[in-house]
Amino acid sequence: MHPLSSLCEAEISLSTKLVRGLHEPGTKLRFKGITTHEPSRKEMQQYRAQSDVKSYTPPRRSWVNYYLTGTASFFEVIINLTTGTIEKSIEVPAGFHGPVDDEEIIAVEKIALEDPRTKVEIEKLKLPDGAVVVCDPWIWGADGVADDVRQYQCYMYMRDPNKPAELDSNHYAFPLTFSPVVDAVTMQVTRIDYLPTGAGFETTSTQPWRATKPNEYIPELNEKRTGLKPLRVLQPEGASFALEGDILKWQKWEMRTSFNYREGMVLHEVSFDGRPLFYRVSLSDMSIPYSDPRAPFHKKQAFDLGDAGAGLMANDLKLGCDCLGAIAYKDGLIADDQGRPVVKPNAMCIHEQDAGILWKHTNYRTGRPVVVRRRELVIQSIITVSNYEYILAFIFDQAGEMTYEVRATGILSTQPIDPGVEVPYGTVVHDGVLAGYHQHILSLRVDPELDGDMDNRLVYEETSALPRHPETNPHGNGYVSKRTTVEKAGGYDLESKKNRVFMIENPKKKNPVNGKNVAYKMHIPPVQPLLAEENSYHYKRADFGDHSVYVTKYQENELFAGGQYTNQNKQTTGVRKWAARNEDISNDDIVVWVQFGLQHVPRIEDFPVMPVEIVKVAFKPVNFFTRNPAIDVPQSTQEFNQSTLLNGHQNGVNDNKSECSSCQ
Amino acid sequence: MHPLSSLCEAEISLSTKLVRGLHEPGTKLRFKGITTHEPSRKEMQQYRAQSDVKSYTPPRRSWVNYYLTGTASFFEVIINLTTGTIEKSIEVPAGFHGPVDDEEIIAVEKIALEDPRTKVEIEKLKLPDGAVVVCDPWIWGADGVADDVRQYQCYMYMRDPNKPAELDSNHYAFPLTFSPVVDAVTMQVTRIDYLPTGAGFETTSTQPWRATKPNEYIPELNEKRTGLKPLRVLQPEGASFALEGDILKWQKWEMRTSFNYREGMVLHEVSFDGRPLFYRVSLSDMSIPYSDPRAPFHKKQAFDLGDAGAGLMANDLKLGCDCLGAIAYKDGLIADDQGRPVVKPNAMCIHEQDAGILWKHTNYRTGRPVVVRRRELVIQSIITVSNYEYILAFIFDQAGEMTYEVRATGILSTQPIDPGVEVPYGTVVHDGVLAGYHQHILSLRVDPELDGDMDNRLVYEETSALPRHPETNPHGNGYVSKRTTVEKAGGYDLESKKNRVFMIENPKKKNPVNGKNVAYKMHIPPVQPLLAEENSYHYKRADFGDHSVYVTKYQENELFAGGQYTNQNKQTTGVRKWAARNEDISNDDIVVWVQFGLQHVPRIEDFPVMPVEIVKVAFKPVNFFTRNPAIDVPQSTQEFNQSTLLNGHQNGVNDNKSECSSCQ
Repeated sequence: MHPLSSLCEAEISLSTKLVRGLHEPGTKLRFKGITTHEPSRKEMQQYRAQSDVKSYTPPRRSWVNYYLTGTASFFEVIINLTTGTIEKSIEVPAGFHGPVDDEEIIAVEKIALEDPRTKVEIEKLKLPDGAVVVCDPWIWGADGVADDVRQYQCYMYMRDPNKPAELDSNHYAFPLTFSPVVDAVTMQVTRIDYLPTGAGFETTSTQPWRATKPNEYIPELNEKRTGLKPLRVLQPEGASFALEGDILKWQKWEMRTSFNYREGMVLHEVSFDGRPLFYRVSLSDMSIPYSDPRAPFHKKQAFDLGDAGAGLMANDLKLGCDCLGAIAYKDGLIADDQGRPVVKPNAMCIHEQDAGILWKHTNYRTGRPVVVRRRELVIQSIITVSNYEYILAFIFDQAGEMTYEVRATGILSTQPIDPGVEVPYGTVVHDGVLAGYHQHILSLRVDPELDGDMDNRLVYEETSALPRHPETNPHGNGYVSKRTTVEKAGGYDLESKKNRVFMIENPKKKNPVNGKNVAYKMHIPPVQPLLAEENSYHYKRADFGDHSVYVTKYQENELFAGGQYTNQNKQTTGVRKWAARNEDISNDDIVVWVQFGLQHVPRIEDFPVMPVEIVKVAFKPVNFFTRNPAIDVPQSTQEFNQSTLLNGHQNGVNDNKSECSSCQ
Repeated sequence: MHPLSSLCEAEISLSTKLVRGLHEPGTKLRFKGITTHEPSRKEMQQYRAQSDVKSYTPPRRSWVNYYLTGTASFFEVIINLTTGTIEKSIEVPAGFHGPVDDEEIIAVEKIALEDPRTKVEIEKLKLPDGAVVVCDPWIWGADGVADDVRQYQCYMYMRDPNKPAELDSNHYAFPLTFSPVVDAVTMQVTRIDYLPTGAGFETTSTQPWRATKPNEYIPELNEKRTGLKPLRVLQPEGASFALEGDILKWQKWEMRTSFNYREGMVLHEVSFDGRPLFYRVSLSDMSIPYSDPRAPFHKKQAFDLGDAGAGLMANDLKLGCDCLGAIAYKDGLIADDQGRPVVKPNAMCIHEQDAGILWKHTNYRTGRPVVVRRRELVIQSIITVSNYEYILAFIFDQAGEMTYEVRATGILSTQPIDPGVEVPYGTVVHDGVLAGYHQHILSLRVDPELDGDMDNRLVYEETSALPRHPETNPHGNGYVSKRTTVEKAGGYDLESKKNRVFMIENPKKKNPVNGKNVAYKMHIPPVQPLLAEENSYHYKRADFGDHSVYVTKYQENELFAGGQYTNQNKQTTGVRKWAARNEDISNDDIVVWVQFGLQHVPRIEDFPVMPVEIVKVAFKPVNFFTRNPAIDVPQSTQEFNQSTLLNGHQNGVNDNKSECSSCQ
């Protein structure tokens, strides 16, 4: 096993066995994640310094979180798999909790639905016969009010009462007005909350249900648009990438892929044309804070990776549905709540796509065009987080550019609203249905090793006007660029009026032609910072929500921008805290955290399922090469591409003539 | 002929004939553009108010610009083609000039190269035998210095002196240090300018050429990358769009396409699902101001539409090269300098493309995924403006979204620089070659008629935190949105910290579910405003460069954001001037101008030809429909898509097992 590989089944099983060995036989344990614990920086440096013959290999390790079932005792264990020994075993301090898991979510729904108090509320609704109530258990969030215990806020919905047997009826169209609270330790309902449905904070007791219509997304319950002809992507000679185990090679790119329950896809040792670029790239977390100030909605803030897991929630990607063309799949491997290895089939797909023209020039004197198309490599995973979906993809092009693209889709989180009522923190998307405003703030963790050195530097470049001056700028058109080194760890912002562009540089490597430090720049789309007030729990917890860029000095185990344990966390434990060390980082082993995302004011077109909103971060070489690194890509030709001519129109035969003849 | 169609050949010929009739027979005229002069608002309202039987049709008109050859006398003529009469004929006032034309550019190059003074300079260079010098004539720009006469600044380059017979040698790798000035009236060289090549403003006399290497882009002079396997797009049942003359229909979209010498592609009467959205959409101009304050570079500011023409410079798109898949082509029709109709073959291509997933949801309880792919319609044109290329595309999706996408590629504009010298307004991209910083600011003109009314409103929506308050925001998470009407014509800016989103609303049409005004929002990427100083000619001329959004009240003939005549213009004559009328526009016939683009600090990877930089503006429905307008698109299935499985990996068979067995 390569030191950076994901755990294999035997390693998961060994971890579970060793952890169980820490307790009396028969002790019920609930596992909350078993993942690779990567080697330290020093260990990897030692390993990688070797030539092809690797006499030294760092030990394999795993990281395990688990509960004593039915208690709040939560543990963190690091296991040396090579020696079969426990390296560290601690009880996680109070105030920190484990994430959800699949089995628990299903169990909580059942508990909520079967509780006598829930049944009392359902009675009051006076639903049609056979109506089926559904429950979306939500992580509790944090508000400092009776939230020491891990618990769930269960938002209640209903299938279309006229089609209760339809398992995939869009229950979000029928939000109910009461919400059971389930204690995750005792696995019991502790009380029923009521949701405000008017314009103010007041709640009322559950009333008879007002009949409204459904809003379904499954195709058999919708009209079917016509006229769409098939479009197929063929690669008759196969794909251009080579996937050998975890190693992926394509068009001068080389990288290692891995997968774990929390981050989903992780890339290691990303290089282009033999030159290292990124040691490790991964989605670090995402925070979705909601804007409704009224209880219990004020607690809604999901950390989809820390509270759940991008690997845990990865879809089983289907050939020809999720991916088009010639596709390779990779499974993921995680553990279930009993510590047993579980395959996540087809958790990642790998394929090429054509993305239009990459470069073109025509010398107008000769009319000779040279055009090269932009082929891309896509490594993709899709996660379902209860109502929402995120399509996550690493995309590489042939000119040394890496992009991380996120598409938000799925179903808005809905809550009930009385007819005729408006509130300034949500949109009515259906009769009786409000979709609250929320933000999606994602954090991409980038651990660079630009051109082979782990010590890199974060800089930003801005362009600014020269002052008008008879000697230096007589006509007032002049402007210059200035590059500023980021000297200290901290959070930094974009400034589009200055065209501020952040770059990762290697100051030890100069471009041989123009002498500039080799660099990679980042195209970061602006996102509104977290709007929650500075002293709120929303703000404290979502460390990374306040700046577009964070940079820290590398320390072991600083992987997750919101901290190790986000669920019901009430403190700042992640990147904001690490950045506050304020270390000198002007030429150091840095980690860059890129924040991006969306302010989501729902529109009715986002319901019942939203058309994707797409956001992406791109990394492009700047004076890293000596010319366009894709100048050698073969020209785009009809022989290669075999496009089809649709309208029998060739080479300048003007079929507009027919229009013209009528105008004489 | 439909009132909004482009001119046909006979109409161009008639225009020329009538214009010639204004002068003595045999008078030499130089034509600078013959285009449709669209009907007035009133005429079109009268026409469109009719049912299918159109008893009233507005007259067909053309707009003609021309010079008396060899003079500065420049004319603007509007012709009623239906009656065959001149409606208006004026001499364009001094201070305004016509654009370039193809024949003139070729002629100027010849004049510059053959002038004795040029030959003297070439002698001084002491070039290798057979070396071929090349000339890129540039529009003059404006600086208030001897610029009343229309003239050209001729930037000089050389083919690889070791391969002078290679017609497509990248001459931009060999910029020369002298620059002839050509008077466009007399068509003669008036003097030789010298280019600064050091760090300062000084110029020297022409020195013997220092031998440097070439930097070629044509494939036969470059290495050829291997490993790229073919990727073909097939549409075995044909494409899903219908193109009947100018009318294009696809997946509920309907629109008219047309083409003219200045704007290239124009769309009229864009509607979705029978509901009108945009009366007219077109690229209005683009300005490329340069940053080097030293003469003659201080004058470099190109208006690629006003100074030349997006139709004039449109590429002949080649099947299988520029476009992949099943493609339809449309020719364009323009006029040459003698007023003869000239076909621009394959100036526009129309095709579909797959752009990944459009929407997806999986009910985690059942595991049933519903996924729909995002098919797009692309209407594309590519323009070559001397060294640069722009790929321009209107892109439509199935959920009512329209995008205008621009890709900048082609070759940087270069100038000579001495070895070892750096300047703060350019990047050295090759030995002896500097690429100056510049901005690309594009302006998209959008004339909306949202949901059938020409009177619309521009608004912007912002989200902001509620103040913390025990009664209204006790936990500090609350935030609200606020929509502000733009009451007055003017220029407006983005503000990402407030998540300011501009929308076009129709206040007369309410969403039947949530009562909001139907609207379309605009996703506008931020661009640094024009950096040139307020009193500079750069600034005055590039009206639209100072704000991301302009809104004006519709007036006839206000089509071009930089004004009607941009070439060597020294005043503000376009959108900034019109917006300064400051009319009330809170519910009126408005025109929206969207500015976007790039601050271009060249990197060495942009040479010899730059990988595309992509910018786009998107228009999305907001409470315009009652649910996701693409909820009816058929599901993505393997049967339809016929993807290929590459790694023999099916349905959860874990082929990671092999890795695991070695770790026991």
